Amino acid sequence: MEIYPIGTIHTGFSTLDDCPPTPGLKDGTARIEVFAPFRDGLYNFSAEEVDVLYWFDKAPRDRLRSATPHDGVERGVFAMRSPHRPNPIALSRVRVIKADDTGLTVDALDCLDGTSLIDLKPVRINRNTVGKK
Amino acid sequence: MEIYPIGTIHTGFSTLDDCPPTPGLKDGTARIEVFAPFRDGLYNFSAEEVDVLYWFDKAPRDRLRSATPHDGVERGVFAMRSPHRPNPIALSRVRVIKADDTGLTVDALDCLDGTSLIDLKPVRINRNTVGKK
Repeated sequence: MEIYPIGTIHTGFSTLDDCPPTPGLKDGTARIEVFAPFRDGLYNFSAEEVDVLYWFDKAPRDRLRSATPHDGVERGVFAMRSPHRPNPIALSRVRVIKADDTGLTVDALDCLDGTSLIDLKPVRINRNTVGKK
Repeated sequence: MEIYPIGTIHTGFSTLDDCPPTPGLKDGTARIEVFAPFRDGLYNFSAEEVDVLYWFDKAPRDRLRSATPHDGVERGVFAMRSPHRPNPIALSRVRVIKADDTGLTVDALDCLDGTSLIDLKPVRINRNTVGKK
């Protein structure tokens, strides 16, 4: 099954050591830029939270267990949210600060500057702001 | 970017007309079967909710706008959770009813019987049930 980047994520983190282990742990924001051919997909965006799917291209895909930094307990990769997993799709639910025609500004994400964006899904559509009949 | 199925989802729905438009709208449960080579990834699973990623193989990928059945308003595909999107990855956050060595039983999902599973991510790990030191 083939997927492809629909945009890119701009963060202040240029090395893995800079990246926070989970979203929201560092102050600041991330800018999610949707590539031009896909920008019409942002039409009428209105939500306070969004699920962001992105690609951890540096994560090993052949590991099925890992120990979390939080408690040192070994768990399977489907029992934790580690980047190490057979399909290294990252998922973060973050607050939307600003939505415009080219992308979203959201709370700080846990990924490198230039990470590939796979999808955006609003958590709950705000139905009061557009298309009132 | 290549992804592959790590399991399959068993639901009672054999046609798209049977499927509810969102998870949790129908009574019943879904069984998430993880394929044998990936089952070690379930080791020490303990969570009350899980984010399930799966593949809407029948969804058109070239559509950037759609109207929701809920209010008839046209929105971009990144402004809604429609299956129609460039990367047709479905994401549902559902309650875990049972976790065992071969998979999970969860609240009803909005997909066809036999849908390909991509990933499982616990929403919050229950740290009190395993590995207490």
